[in-house]
Amino acid sequence: MERDLVRWICSRLPANRRLIVGAGDDAAILRLTESSNVVATTDMLMDGVDFELRGHEPERVGRKALAVNLSDLAAMAATPIGALVSVALPRQGGEQLAKRLIEGMLPLVTDFDCPIAGGDTNSWDGPLVISITALGEVPPERRWLRSGARPGDAIVVTGKFGGSILGGHFDFTPRVRESLWLGENAEIRAAMDVSDGLSLDLSRICEASGCGAVIDLEKVPIAAAAEELARQEGGGFSALDHALGDGEDFELILAAPAEQAADLIARQPLNVPLTQIGQFIAESGLFSRGENGTLQPLKPRGYEHRLDS
Amino acid sequence: MERDLVRWICSRLPANRRLIVGAGDDAAILRLTESSNVVATTDMLMDGVDFELRGHEPERVGRKALAVNLSDLAAMAATPIGALVSVALPRQGGEQLAKRLIEGMLPLVTDFDCPIAGGDTNSWDGPLVISITALGEVPPERRWLRSGARPGDAIVVTGKFGGSILGGHFDFTPRVRESLWLGENAEIRAAMDVSDGLSLDLSRICEASGCGAVIDLEKVPIAAAAEELARQEGGGFSALDHALGDGEDFELILAAPAEQAADLIARQPLNVPLTQIGQFIAESGLFSRGENGTLQPLKPRGYEHRLDS
Repeated sequence: MERDLVRWICSRLPANRRLIVGAGDDAAILRLTESSNVVATTDMLMDGVDFELRGHEPERVGRKALAVNLSDLAAMAATPIGALVSVALPRQGGEQLAKRLIEGMLPLVTDFDCPIAGGDTNSWDGPLVISITALGEVPPERRWLRSGARPGDAIVVTGKFGGSILGGHFDFTPRVRESLWLGENAEIRAAMDVSDGLSLDLSRICEASGCGAVIDLEKVPIAAAAEELARQEGGGFSALDHALGDGEDFELILAAPAEQAADLIARQPLNVPLTQIGQFIAESGLFSRGENGTLQPLKPRGYEHRLDS
Repeated sequence: MERDLVRWICSRLPANRRLIVGAGDDAAILRLTESSNVVATTDMLMDGVDFELRGHEPERVGRKALAVNLSDLAAMAATPIGALVSVALPRQGGEQLAKRLIEGMLPLVTDFDCPIAGGDTNSWDGPLVISITALGEVPPERRWLRSGARPGDAIVVTGKFGGSILGGHFDFTPRVRESLWLGENAEIRAAMDVSDGLSLDLSRICEASGCGAVIDLEKVPIAAAAEELARQEGGGFSALDHALGDGEDFELILAAPAEQAADLIARQPLNVPLTQIGQFIAESGLFSRGENGTLQPLKPRGYEHRLDS
């Protein structure tokens, strides 16, 4: 949710013993029974805002709508258990559209063992709206929040960044398997998936954790799509700029103790590369370290959600 | 979801050990851990379809959006544990609108101990869309499904029916407390909340249970609003017609063994009236019994969801 609105809602809500993690993180954690917690996350995508049905196959739209929710579960190291799919369908061709959206989701349903458990189907005169809620399971002791990073922790990321607009924002693989492996085999103190931009989302971890961060610019893994985009544009933004500021990479930013991080980087236990791109520091703010070692303030860039009042 | 689409989706989904109750009932039941299940339900409401923002206070719209989900949890005798709220807000005045929607939900949050745990807030050029997912907890052995009614079971309902269009469809109280009491203290074999019309929703229990039902017409509890509506219309539909066919009563239809039902009716243990309005029978179809005892086929009436293809 938008940050100001989230703060306002949280200020209006009565305390509740079931609410372990509420609005403001990648997903909520709710106490189901004394010994089990459920993780829940939701995303709503609208035609003309998050995709253009005129230009994009419904199957890709459906896949993305489920994948962004699975990515939020990954940011909590939660095992997916099911999803609910609600749609507002345009009257013309609505049923066929719904089937194509679902067809796009089915490979993810199978790959991540995440059944579509229900939903709500509606017709109207407006554009397509698709709202998915994904549920997951985490052991009660596992809490991957945005707020757990400590000065000295390494900033570790999965995969590569930038240029998702060329296609990656539809076809990315949510890092569910990777986060589950890390949740079971490593100490991870904070985590977030990159939806709005590497530098902007990193600054949010810093804010939630009450610390700052230094990025080693030459360590940032740059996606081929970011190079391609910089080339297409012919100036203005470099591939590194795209890696730092483009949204919808859906890779993970992790805070890990330095030794733990060094071990992971050396072992590379996952099918995607793990890269240390810097470290968290006590001083607040975001900084870059260039090749000569000097620190410079770095302005977080990415997609800022705003509500017109 | 629309029935044909739900069937199609179910036919396309791989089997999944976590999916205890999937699409087609009031809510889904998913296995979270070996000893705990989570109940999940979702409803999407759109301006111009489910409400008219020009004519209705946003607080009432927000309240209803959460209440319909709590009613689905009640139909499963589930204890609410939390809700996720997603909105597509019109750009003009979106933040203020969001706050008023939430304000309308807060009394239900408190009354039913159901925290808003998160959500997704968006702006766009379209009308307001609000999609809520509610989560609940049920003991693993409790399964209030639509499919459990048996010939000879009594048809028991909470409250009164008809005329919700005069206001009840906004201001109804979801039968959460009543269903939890019944779940703990009575044997209930099937349940459903009335969203589309008493006779239509009863016919759906029959279909899911593979049986039929006889309604004693003179037993049907008629809401004052149904009388008022019949009076306003001056002919055409009687108050009983409204009770049988109007939607959005959000009362419960229950199937209970005959002796259990007789005991409940005699004791009236709830704050709302429990009424036996007939019984389930082996022969399929819906029938009415008039004052002279003769059976007549009764055409189910109510709100049929349709998708244009």
